Amino acid sequence: MSDLTLVIGNKASSSWSLRPWLALKQIGVPFREITVPLRQAETKAEILRHSPAGKVPVLRDGDVTVHDSLAILEYLAESHPEAGLWPDDRGARAAARSISAEMHSGFVDLRRNMPMDVTDKHPGEGRTPEVLADIARITELWRDARARFGADGPFLFGRFTVADAMYAPVCTRFDTYGVELDEVAQAYVGTVLGLPAMREWYAAGAAEPWGALL
Amino acid sequence: MSDLTLVIGNKASSSWSLRPWLALKQIGVPFREITVPLRQAETKAEILRHSPAGKVPVLRDGDVTVHDSLAILEYLAESHPEAGLWPDDRGARAAARSISAEMHSGFVDLRRNMPMDVTDKHPGEGRTPEVLADIARITELWRDARARFGADGPFLFGRFTVADAMYAPVCTRFDTYGVELDEVAQAYVGTVLGLPAMREWYAAGAAEPWGALL
Repeated sequence: MSDLTLVIGNKASSSWSLRPWLALKQIGVPFREITVPLRQAETKAEILRHSPAGKVPVLRDGDVTVHDSLAILEYLAESHPEAGLWPDDRGARAAARSISAEMHSGFVDLRRNMPMDVTDKHPGEGRTPEVLADIARITELWRDARARFGADGPFLFGRFTVADAMYAPVCTRFDTYGVELDEVAQAYVGTVLGLPAMREWYAAGAAEPWGALL
Repeated sequence: MSDLTLVIGNKASSSWSLRPWLALKQIGVPFREITVPLRQAETKAEILRHSPAGKVPVLRDGDVTVHDSLAILEYLAESHPEAGLWPDDRGARAAARSISAEMHSGFVDLRRNMPMDVTDKHPGEGRTPEVLADIARITELWRDARARFGADGPFLFGRFTVADAMYAPVCTRFDTYGVELDEVAQAYVGTVLGLPAMREWYAAGAAEPWGALL
């Protein structure tokens, strides 16, 4: 019996929280959610109750605590091998881990200048040269994954994997900021944003009392 | 037969390169090294020959390419299970992945203000309040890992794991910048810097013709 609790920030704008939340929804494992509203007076103290790193998301599974989005995704992939959260093929898995890690430590300009906001649209905003370079690299790696590994489904590696969870917040940003995309990227964003779990996240984000944190 | 090639930057200052290099040395797998000197006119073009992400390190294993330090470490852990690059215990492994990922995406102030330089000492430099907060968190997570999981050896989780590879550049920084440490952290830094592979890295860094990139 699963005893999972995921501690997350606001759905309107906590991109790191979306990643493991979406993966949990996609693999269909029941879990309890605890939301810690960000940028409130008591936010830091509240998060530290769950994790000494002081950041969301945090996953608790019985007496095991996992902090950091990518570590949680690795943990879920390992705990639920039947869900296939990494590609089966060794080379595909290495590629999926590479681009997931690239997202995890990178694309700082995109993250800073196009913060996630699932409650509104901001077409045309945030397009610095550095952001455009990030967008070019992301759409390049999407095209590469789709072309080399994506034949068996609409996701980056065919079926839904950790890589899709990692890039889901980017899909929301491309939609929110009206970024013009190539056909492959446009279709991929449509696939991700059309997931029932993503619609649920958007609806919950729009219903939050705190508003977006832009 | 192993056919591994690791593409790295300058040993004097490429902290991301040190991580997978050290892990490969620790597990004793032979590999070929290609060094791409950073911040030269031809650096970008040279790295792009090896990886479309345009960053070092890159690992090639036959026809598999892995870019990003953490993805390479996961790949090595998976390819060489006998090396035990992650802790055996599920909870310990989750903790090791959490702090490895925390290093991978975080401690930006430390990284910016105390860049790795294995060729010199800079005591007292770089100590902004944000850097001191990073240092406090790092030494806290070291103490926590050593106390909870480190009984069987001198490393964070007893034997050498990915987590030690991830924090090895931090050990060099604490030494280079003369950071005062608690006893646990001081002993741990001594353990890491005393590894024959680390001595080899330092010697090679000091012998490079390009100098440090501070």
